[in-house]
Amino acid sequence: MSQTGSNGRSASDRLLLISSDCHAGALPVMYEEYMPRKYHAAATEWWLGYAREMMHRAGTFFDQEAVEAYAEQAGEGGGRMKAMTLPDTRPSDDEILAMLADETSPFAPRRGEFDPTTRLAELEADGIVAEVVFPQMAPFGAGLMQYRHPVPPEHNLEGIRAYNRWLADLCKTNPGRHAGVALINVEDIDVTVKEIRNAKDMGLWGGVLLPTSTGDHPYYHDERYEPIWSVCEELGMPIQSHAGWSPDYGDGPAATPMYISEVDMWAHRPFTALLWSGAFERHPDLKYVLTETGCSWILETLRVLEFKADNPIFKHFTKDLSLRPSEYFARQCFIGASFMPAHEGRDRHAIGLDKLMWGSDYPHLEGTWPNTMEALRETFGTYPEAEIRALLGTNAAEVYGFDLDALAPIAERIGPTLSELRAGA
Amino acid sequence: MSQTGSNGRSASDRLLLISSDCHAGALPVMYEEYMPRKYHAAATEWWLGYAREMMHRAGTFFDQEAVEAYAEQAGEGGGRMKAMTLPDTRPSDDEILAMLADETSPFAPRRGEFDPTTRLAELEADGIVAEVVFPQMAPFGAGLMQYRHPVPPEHNLEGIRAYNRWLADLCKTNPGRHAGVALINVEDIDVTVKEIRNAKDMGLWGGVLLPTSTGDHPYYHDERYEPIWSVCEELGMPIQSHAGWSPDYGDGPAATPMYISEVDMWAHRPFTALLWSGAFERHPDLKYVLTETGCSWILETLRVLEFKADNPIFKHFTKDLSLRPSEYFARQCFIGASFMPAHEGRDRHAIGLDKLMWGSDYPHLEGTWPNTMEALRETFGTYPEAEIRALLGTNAAEVYGFDLDALAPIAERIGPTLSELRAGA
Repeated sequence: MSQTGSNGRSASDRLLLISSDCHAGALPVMYEEYMPRKYHAAATEWWLGYAREMMHRAGTFFDQEAVEAYAEQAGEGGGRMKAMTLPDTRPSDDEILAMLADETSPFAPRRGEFDPTTRLAELEADGIVAEVVFPQMAPFGAGLMQYRHPVPPEHNLEGIRAYNRWLADLCKTNPGRHAGVALINVEDIDVTVKEIRNAKDMGLWGGVLLPTSTGDHPYYHDERYEPIWSVCEELGMPIQSHAGWSPDYGDGPAATPMYISEVDMWAHRPFTALLWSGAFERHPDLKYVLTETGCSWILETLRVLEFKADNPIFKHFTKDLSLRPSEYFARQCFIGASFMPAHEGRDRHAIGLDKLMWGSDYPHLEGTWPNTMEALRETFGTYPEAEIRALLGTNAAEVYGFDLDALAPIAERIGPTLSELRAGA
Repeated sequence: MSQTGSNGRSASDRLLLISSDCHAGALPVMYEEYMPRKYHAAATEWWLGYAREMMHRAGTFFDQEAVEAYAEQAGEGGGRMKAMTLPDTRPSDDEILAMLADETSPFAPRRGEFDPTTRLAELEADGIVAEVVFPQMAPFGAGLMQYRHPVPPEHNLEGIRAYNRWLADLCKTNPGRHAGVALINVEDIDVTVKEIRNAKDMGLWGGVLLPTSTGDHPYYHDERYEPIWSVCEELGMPIQSHAGWSPDYGDGPAATPMYISEVDMWAHRPFTALLWSGAFERHPDLKYVLTETGCSWILETLRVLEFKADNPIFKHFTKDLSLRPSEYFARQCFIGASFMPAHEGRDRHAIGLDKLMWGSDYPHLEGTWPNTMEALRETFGTYPEAEIRALLGTNAAEVYGFDLDALAPIAERIGPTLSELRAGA
């Protein structure tokens, strides 16, 4: 049991847990309050189409037996999955709309995803004092799957704005505890820059979610994105990549394995693009975070990039870069390693202890909620205390600017103890 | 100095070198002999457009100073690069056609790429007795960049056929020494299957180059490709992935670094798709080879796939697979590791000594030709003899069916000695 915590702030046995990866999203109808009336009808149409696609996929990919088996394995977190009965007839628009407005429906968000009171209670019951908040599917295809669905750009922008406004309201209910991540698209970069400024002004300080796909636009090595890197550095908004987007793998039996196998890869790509574009060189104070894409992969990626960087033809194109790929990573990149399975945790020193942040992925089924303590024990139970405190909380505080002094009393009340974490490890 | 070689065939100090990665391609005009007359004019138009694109890119990406600097570093192999003077005026169609028909032009293949006598002499001078032959750019965008350029499918198919016929003629000049790799596209799978049978009948036994991109068609996890896996297993034609294709990164300064950084990744993807599609499960005698995409990457890829395979939702979709990802790899996949830099060679035991095949990448500038011995020393100089013989020759013989007894007398004449390889190591 420690007398002085490694961060010099706490003499307590309690741990201060910040989840660097949580998700929030409203019931579709709730976004109307945050969106000009003229877009409401189109938004409803979009949600109908999206829900039909989800239902079609669920029906194609799963049989009831599979749903039950998965729910059983996923434990209490699988409650919603268990409740899901696959529709065997084609529901009407009205039935779908009712489902989308009903928090108990398998196709709508859980209450904790949009209700701040429920959310805070569930986070605290899981031992978490503060969080970084990523989206669910937002109106008009905005969010993690940006550019997966063809949507008129004007509509997509309204979806982004509605989500950001809604999220800002959610986050301000518990100041200092929800670092909301703002959505953007990459249609008109001047407009995007304004949205980023608005987001910061509205109180979203968790950074900016960089769409994993750029749609029909050039990828992120292109110079057109320079104003985004610039404004994010100026405002101290981390650039975020988060797994989620993929191309459409279709309806066949191998579609889901392909998605699960490749989804991280798509979200890793912007790192390489920002690197060679010189974004890190020109913006040394820009922070870039890769979230829920694993962490051990960065070792192989850096190995390859370091090797490629020595290619003589390569050097001609990178002569303005003063640092090596690993040095840029060390200076300004971070990994939201989410649940961080034990075998990935073993690479923590090679990656850099100050580079990694744990996250519960609340409220997703694949995350640790509501059994976070159990998952923490498995990976972190035997780590030295200083490493535990860094990985589970203080690193995230440093990257995002959470106020540890303000959060400490909450951790004293709801944080798990080091002894609990060590129990059985 | 060995008395009996590890493969039990040779008591000689000479090494039998098979390059698992070489390239061949004709001057554009030479393909006309192998293509119906009605497509000749369209083919010429296509080559003009392609040459203009190459020249535009060379002019955009390089200045003369960069070309000279690179040529100097690339040594003797850079001779052609050094000879290249960037065109500063827009050449006429006639000038381009003259360039494309002129083996000394920087925009046309070297003589060794199409002339079998020169080719054999250059390979032998480099110590190589036999080779696996991959393409250069073939007519109508066929080859490594298949689906990068929009081409009418009918034309593309004629380009594929012309290249395969031409290659078959090249290969038959020295029977048993050139394992030619056949081109295909994935437009009409029945047609593709017939092309594969034709290619085998014509004497192309190096396998089938799977296009890295499937264009507008579903990716390789889809069931539509099943007849390709089937016929390749039946005929003993390895399925080949070879680095080369990428999306278009545009003309900006970071385009080349992006290409060099990501080009291997695109060629790795089919492994995952074949795996989850069940191609390896249903076709245990199918061989799959990944060439010139590095080798250490497979360790990280398998680590991730093994981990993902334990995902409970994943198991529902992969219940027909009787083996683990690593077991399929061990059973029927191989890596044409090309020049295999020393730091990748250190992973040879982890990957599997029987999985790896060296290649010179003749006649590419980034390959080891014409300084193969020097490159071999750097990676293989200190390896045990049995490992050297496996990695440099007998593994490729086993995968492709080269006749070692027939090749041994040639190795006695032109192969480097083990002592030479060890010199200075």
